[in-house]
Amino acid sequence: MSLHTHRFHVALHDTDAAGVLFFAHLLRHAHDAYEGLMAAGGMPLAGVVAEGAFHLPIVHCEADYRAPLRHGDKVAVAVTVARVGESAFTLRYRFTAGGEEAAAATTVHVALDPASRAKRPLPAPLRALLAAGARGEAAL
Amino acid sequence: MSLHTHRFHVALHDTDAAGVLFFAHLLRHAHDAYEGLMAAGGMPLAGVVAEGAFHLPIVHCEADYRAPLRHGDKVAVAVTVARVGESAFTLRYRFTAGGEEAAAATTVHVALDPASRAKRPLPAPLRALLAAGARGEAAL
Amino acid sequence: MSLHTHRFHVALHDTDAAGVLFFAHLLRHAHDAYEGLMAAGGMPLAGVVAEGAFHLPIVHCEADYRAPLRHGDKVAVAVTVARVGESAFTLRYRFTAGGEEAAAATTVHVALDPASRAKRPLPAPLRALLAAGARGEAAL
Amino acid sequence: MSLHTHRFHVALHDTDAAGVLFFAHLLRHAHDAYEGLMAAGGMPLAGVVAEGAFHLPIVHCEADYRAPLRHGDKVAVAVTVARVGESAFTLRYRFTAGGEEAAAATTVHVALDPASRAKRPLPAPLRALLAAGARGEAAL
Repeated sequence: MSLHTHRFHVALHDTDAAGVLFFAHLLRHAHDAYEGLMAAGGMPLAGVVAEGAFHLPIVHCEADYRAPLRHGDKVAVAVTVARVGESAFTLRYRFTAGGEEAAAATTVHVALDPASRAKRPLPAPLRALLAAGARGEAAL
Repeated sequence: MSLHTHRFHVALHDTDAAGVLFFAHLLRHAHDAYEGLMAAGGMPLAGVVAEGAFHLPIVHCEADYRAPLRHGDKVAVAVTVARVGESAFTLRYRFTAGGEEAAAATTVHVALDPASRAKRPLPAPLRALLAAGARGEAAL
Repeated sequence: MSLHTHRFHVALHDTDAAGVLFFAHLLRHAHDAYEGLMAAGGMPLAGVVAEGAFHLPIVHCEADYRAPLRHGDKVAVAVTVARVGESAFTLRYRFTAGGEEAAAATTVHVALDPASRAKRPLPAPLRALLAAGARGEAAL
Repeated sequence: MSLHTHRFHVALHDTDAAGVLFFAHLLRHAHDAYEGLMAAGGMPLAGVVAEGAFHLPIVHCEADYRAPLRHGDKVAVAVTVARVGESAFTLRYRFTAGGEEAAAATTVHVALDPASRAKRPLPAPLRALLAAGARGEAAL
């Protein structure tokens, strides 16, 4: 069940001379979907970054490419919260175009203390947002 | 008078360590606005590129930056057709955020014969689209 | 054992407002290292793409981020051939800065017939290049 | 006379489905050349940004595209200091590939007080670096 859907058209700058979306750009679009999820949950990432109360780096990502995405394709990215741990959470992204799954991606995010860079528990409001997400609640 | 307005939020990947939109990315957003204009006019750029009946490279661009754009800013890009010549046309982009002008950009596009790479007249449907744009017609 | 090493400085445009390299850009640098490996092996990727005798899309990628990369950091990307199969191969990338491992990445590439988009055996010269790579031969 | 030359190969991710370098990416490469100039002059931009004693945004850029740059092209970007004013300076970039001029670009940079964002005089060491550059001195 999907929490948030981010939509985009494949722009000319997304493609390369092979005529398809350059693979690394898929993860840029995944990140846009993550930003959309956070904004929809009332905690825009811009605020998290600007306040700096905790860092939230991506420590792992992966992507599987099933069908080429071409210039002009209309793509939907459905984001789900796959796992919420003590200090980390995992998001999954499903990219579809023309009703077919074109790609899937995963990102793992860890909360760090900004001074020590040690892992710290997920802040309560972020945990609440993600837990609602993991339950697929309508609020997101 | 504006023909087409493209909207985006400044994403984390648009910014750099100085905390503001990296200047070259403004032109990526201008190009997204150009793609939106073409799609709104019934001639999506993806079709133009894929058909290859003529090339339409950008031969000049420029941008003026008046106020920093920051992560999370909601930006509107208003595109207008500034000039339509025999083989070339000029688009202007006005970037506003929070009601203030943040930047302006210009792109000049030239139609080329794909084989010889010599200038050729703008194809009639493109000329019509741009002429309607230059008149600020509602169709766009 | 590493076959090819790609070096770069983290540029301002690699970073984001959080002050570190934006995660997806790591995969852009991995791809630059892959292009360097192909060129060093006498089969520049530009030729492969332009000839179009076979397609060679990336079907999977992943990355692990161990330490932040910051603006100005001098980074070495060591590429190795991790696996060569019938139609596919896997490359590994180890990113180091200041003598410490900052990140690791993996890409999986598949040879496709351009007309049918079905898997096809790796072309012999590419297989030879990769096999030499997998043996860590000096030629690369 | 050129002060600093930045070299790169056109990577797959620099190109788009039209088979040539996407126009906005030229300005990313111009910025890399600017970073190279600053580093060669002993004042790496990363230090300027991290210290934050003054801001140095780009307030204007422009580029002219004379010949297409294609995947694999080996490009040299020669940077020169075109003008040094009280608070601002102008850099010019000449892109050549295969001995031919492919593009030219210009960037205008202004020193700002970080608190007030008002123009401030160029800091003395930066002025000295640029003045040496404007004289085409060997140090750069």
